[in-house]
Amino acid sequence: MTVTDDLLQNNARYAESFSGPLPLPPAKQIAVLACMDARIDVYRVLGLAEGESHVIRNAGGVVTDDEIRSLAISQRLLGTKEIVLIHHTDCGMLTFTDEQFRDGIADEVGTRPTWASEAFTDLEDDVRASRQRILDSPFIPVKDSVRGFVFDVATGQLHEVS
Amino acid sequence: MTVTDDLLQNNARYAESFSGPLPLPPAKQIAVLACMDARIDVYRVLGLAEGESHVIRNAGGVVTDDEIRSLAISQRLLGTKEIVLIHHTDCGMLTFTDEQFRDGIADEVGTRPTWASEAFTDLEDDVRASRQRILDSPFIPVKDSVRGFVFDVATGQLHEVS
Repeated sequence: MTVTDDLLQNNARYAESFSGPLPLPPAKQIAVLACMDARIDVYRVLGLAEGESHVIRNAGGVVTDDEIRSLAISQRLLGTKEIVLIHHTDCGMLTFTDEQFRDGIADEVGTRPTWASEAFTDLEDDVRASRQRILDSPFIPVKDSVRGFVFDVATGQLHEVS
Repeated sequence: MTVTDDLLQNNARYAESFSGPLPLPPAKQIAVLACMDARIDVYRVLGLAEGESHVIRNAGGVVTDDEIRSLAISQRLLGTKEIVLIHHTDCGMLTFTDEQFRDGIADEVGTRPTWASEAFTDLEDDVRASRQRILDSPFIPVKDSVRGFVFDVATGQLHEVS
């Protein structure tokens, strides 16, 4: 019995009281881009209901081409207009360097990743850099509200990065 | 008053009853990769509690280099061992072609994205292709349980793709 099997049993219970389908475009016209960290339950942290917001997540909550792709689809095809970025305290991305990570992989499997790990050394600076990448992208049409936050894993609070 | 401001008020209420911090590594040693679709509340769909699973999300729930990066960090640095892939019915990625999407952007802003939109035409085939990209990657060490599912937005049920 794997963890996946357990989660499928949970899903069967979830479906018993499920009512759908909701419309495809997010009702609140917003997209959230957050770190994949297990402690950030984005819907609960922001009080979102199903159907209200796109949720994009990756290691660090960083902005690479793939997040620009998702945000471009979110805005251009599904009508979202605001973007919320969420990094967090005690992030794993602060615990290693890109060189360490890629050297470790190269030593172990004999192939060096062509992609960067996106590790960072300053949380707020990386929120600012992520926001700037969005502001600089020609593929994201609506940039009136692109705001960056740090989620405090000790308190559950979001703090805005200016 | 933006939607973002509303969500920040929700966060203040969330923090009032928050108890943390939980440990950084996911307690259930699992990573979920799902579409960004607003109707998929991953924690509720799978009965996950905070701290239990990494959650990676993008337009389509596809596997590009950035998802390999996140999964590699998840397994190599934070000890996860199972992977769950979730696509879903009524997906926006089925409603356009890559050529349409990139031509539309090129016409409008004068620059053609270098990245593909990752649009797909068959849901189950794309789940299989996503799973295969993970199985083929030298950077993901643990592949004993990499399973792909389609979430039905009408019923809330996950159906496994074989």
